[in-house]
Formats: sequence, structure tokens, C-alpha cells
Amino acid sequence: MVDRIDGHTILIGLMAYPIRHSMSPTMHNTSFVKLGLNYAYLAFEVGNKELPDAIQSIRSLGMRGSNISMPNKQKVIPLLDKLDPVAKMVGAVNTIVNDDGVLTGYTTDGTGFMKSLADENLDIRGEKMTISGAGGAGTAIEIQAANDGVKEMSIFNIKDATWANAERNVKIINEQTDCKAQLFDLADQDAFKREIADSAIYCDSTGVGMKPLEDKTLVSDPSFFHKDMIVYDTVYAPRTTKLMTVAEEAGVNHVFNGLGMMLEQGAEAFKLWTGEDMPVDYIRNILFSDDASKVK
Amino acid sequence: MVDRIDGHTILIGLMAYPIRHSMSPTMHNTSFVKLGLNYAYLAFEVGNKELPDAIQSIRSLGMRGSNISMPNKQKVIPLLDKLDPVAKMVGAVNTIVNDDGVLTGYTTDGTGFMKSLADENLDIRGEKMTISGAGGAGTAIEIQAANDGVKEMSIFNIKDATWANAERNVKIINEQTDCKAQLFDLADQDAFKREIADSAIYCDSTGVGMKPLEDKTLVSDPSFFHKDMIVYDTVYAPRTTKLMTVAEEAGVNHVFNGLGMMLEQGAEAFKLWTGEDMPVDYIRNILFSDDASKVK
Repeated sequence: MVDRIDGHTILIGLMAYPIRHSMSPTMHNTSFVKLGLNYAYLAFEVGNKELPDAIQSIRSLGMRGSNISMPNKQKVIPLLDKLDPVAKMVGAVNTIVNDDGVLTGYTTDGTGFMKSLADENLDIRGEKMTISGAGGAGTAIEIQAANDGVKEMSIFNIKDATWANAERNVKIINEQTDCKAQLFDLADQDAFKREIADSAIYCDSTGVGMKPLEDKTLVSDPSFFHKDMIVYDTVYAPRTTKLMTVAEEAGVNHVFNGLGMMLEQGAEAFKLWTGEDMPVDYIRNILFSDDASKVK
Repeated sequence: MVDRIDGHTILIGLMAYPIRHSMSPTMHNTSFVKLGLNYAYLAFEVGNKELPDAIQSIRSLGMRGSNISMPNKQKVIPLLDKLDPVAKMVGAVNTIVNDDGVLTGYTTDGTGFMKSLADENLDIRGEKMTISGAGGAGTAIEIQAANDGVKEMSIFNIKDATWANAERNVKIINEQTDCKAQLFDLADQDAFKREIADSAIYCDSTGVGMKPLEDKTLVSDPSFFHKDMIVYDTVYAPRTTKLMTVAEEAGVNHVFNGLGMMLEQGAEAFKLWTGEDMPVDYIRNILFSDDASKVK
């Protein structure tokens, strides 16, 4: 059988380290095949050291763009020509688009999160959100949600190296959006319970609950949750995290793992590169048919 | 259907301009699929200006290597770490292999030519060869044939910009190999006829006969040829060139277009990158089933 890749195929990259086990190449390439688009999406093991040359290769090889992941999401910014305003607020880039040698940086993690809620006909605009964590994923979600119209945001963080970033996020949100944000120490469990109780959505962006920490959760008491709220874990391995199990015990109506966000951040990047909509349902069915964790 | 390209797929490039219509990506990718090798071979529009950055991208993206074609075959040499001895004699590189960041340049055009004869159980070692042209393809064939044991070589060229290169080839062959080479002006038709008559093989490496010059040939008189010789045109579009038609009129036993050389130069590069043999017959059948021009 003649392979689909020919002399006209345009390259899109994924630059990160480690990266070989990422599902993104399979997700994008399978979408290209499904839609008959002549692109190939390949992962490259790129760390901070190789990053400047790797970014220049987007120009010299005429790539359409690239995804950027750890440890390059911040380091890449000075290497680009333009920055999307939200990416600038987030201080991180996960997607680069190359328009005739001009590289623009975007972040689709936050839009992917919001889109995954919209896919479920859920709208958190005008509502209050409680979120734990202020790392890469957390920051993207917080800034995007605030930009999109979430009314109030309570951010919980431990007093580690990421505390300063949590402070920065609160400051930017309060200064540059209509959302009112507040920072709390995660050690203050009374505040944690109170803020969650008052929220339409609780999101855990810390990665606690991900393999090999799959027996951990920041909320182990089901009484923290109420039925008509959303509980959203950005983790998707395992498909059902400890947090999700606790939320299900509490009878929470809308419990999600991070698979929807992962798919939709990819779809947002896909749209930026190709102008086409990624066939998200098809990809979910063909690649993640084991996703039995979505409880409504 | 889930696409074959995943996070483990290793990139191999083709850097040239223009290049989009090359058959090499289809040839290599179809071979990867056939053998179950996890590589992707993509063409990149790279001219002299982008070449240094593009070569550096082989290192920064961890590519396995690249093919190099016009206009970069000479310009690439100072950008590499090592050079195969024959590539050095030829003064051109068409294949780069990346071993952990160390780039070695090879030329497989000449070995591809010799291999295509071996595929037909033809051996020109110890014989006399007459060849017209001393450009990229001609130089690679001349140097490789001399290295491999062709005893005598008569090179015919017009007195244009490539004459100096023809002089260089003759000098290198006479100084560095056991072959005895001589240069003639193509305008000297008596010498041309005499040298061909005395040769086991005549090869036209000039590209005369290629579209849109498909009605041209350097030899239009069938009496130049004898039956038990080889007539080899490096052109393969059209599949049957004017030169080949003249050779067939003369009843020449072994008449070839450049398809075998094109396939085998690719196979030699394929072997350098993957360590595996390209399924040449399969590729010829699946991609070039219109090749009815090989007359024996």
C-alpha cells in the first residue's frame, strides 16, 4: 500500500522532553487521515538546550507550527515573533503557528478546558470557581476562565515554589479581567471546604491522583461537594482518579477527568494550524474507548 | 483508522528546492510501511539560504538523517562533521546520517548506478566506459565507477561551465584510482563514435532527453552502438528517451533508463539510515508499474 506521506506533506512538531509516550501524535495524525489533510505531526525530544535551534527549524524547514510542552512552555516565549494576549497573561505557550516565517505563540490549554465544558453543555461564565494548583495547567485554566467571564475565583495552593505564581495569577486576573480572584493556603481546610461549597465548579489542576500517585486526592471527604456542582480533575491517567471517586460518592452530577481538556486543547491547536475542526468524538472513540469515567 | 505515525516515529528529511514533486517521500514511506519501520520521510523546501539552519535541525530535532538535492549538494559539505571518502572525491553529498549529533555525508548516486547494473547481473568492472556529462549525476557515476574497478573511462563534455569539473574528475580519477580517464570535447563526433564503439557501456548523464527536451539525444545515429553493449540514460521521465529508442534501433541488448539508479540510490540511503534493505522490486511494482522501457 502506498503511504499517505508524499512530497507535499507539511510537518507539524511537538517539542518536549520526555515526549515519546505522548498520545498527541496519534491524535493529530489520525485526524489528518480522517479529514484527508496532508500534514504529519511528529514528536521531537527537545529540552531547553536544543530549544533555540529547534524553534528556528520551524522557519528553516517551513513547518506549519508546533506544540510545546515541558520543559519549554515558558522558555520558548523570547524565541517567538508574536504572542497571543492570553498566552502573554498566562506566561506560557503550548502552540506555535508559523505564517511565512513569523511565529506566533498561543496557549490552548485554557481554551481546551472551557471547550470541554461547553461540549457537555456546561457554562461556568458568571459563576464561582474553586481551583487547586497554579502550575502550567492551573495557570492556563485560571487566566482563560477569568477572561471568559467566570465571576469569582478561589485559588488554593501549597506554600511551595509555585506560591509566587499563584500570587501572580491572582494579581493579573484582578487587574486585567472582571473576575475577582483570591488566593488561599491549601493547609486552611476550613476555607477549602467553604469555598468549594460556594462554587459551581471545583477543579484540581495539581496532578495529584495521576500515576504513580493514583491513591492520592486533595479532597477525601465527600461532604465537601454538593450534587449540582462540577468536579473536574485535569488528570486522565488513570481514567478514574481518587478525587472522581470521592465526587461520585457525594453524588456529584458532573464529574470529569482531563481527557476532554486534553482532546480539546489539541483540537484548538489543530484549528489554528489547519483551519479545520478536529473530529474530537471520532478520536475519543477510536483512541480512548476505555474512557468509562465520565459520570453525569 | 489509527495512523501509523506516533510519538516514537523518527524523522528523515529531504532538503532541496524545488522538491514537492519528488517521488522519494512516497518511495521511502511506502518502504517503511512495508517493513514496519517507525520512520517518516518528509520533503522540505530548503535553498542555500535556509541550509545552515536546516542542517542544524537534523541535530536539534534528533532526525536520523536527510537526503540533500539541488541546489545544496556541494554547499552542505562545510556544515557536516564527517565526509565519506567517495563523497569527498565526488565533491557532493546526497545523504546525511546523524549518529548522536555527528553528521556524516555520503553520496549514493554512484553506488545506486552500480547497484542498478548489478541488479541486472551486469558487471562493468575491468571494462571501458564512455560517458557524457560531468555535472552532479555524471561526477558521482564517474568517480564511483572508477573506484569500483572500471578500467578505462572516456568522458565527453561540451565546453561550457561544467568543462572545468570534467577536467577535475579526470584528474582525480587518474590520481586516486586505477582507472585511466580521458576527457574529450563532445563536438568531436569522430572521437565520440570511436570511443563508444570501443566501450562496454555508454552512459548519458547530461539530462538531455528529459522533459521538456524529450525529442533530443546526443546520439541520433544507431551505428554508434553495437549489440552487446549497455546503453544507460540517467533520465527516467519519459520512461523511454530518444537515446533509448536509437539504442533499440541498433539492437542493443541492454538499454536502461534512470529509474533503477533512482531506486537504488534511495535504497543505499535507506540502508545507511535503517540498516535494512529497501524492498526495491515491491517499490518498482507499486510506484512505477508504467516502466515498460527496460529492453534487454
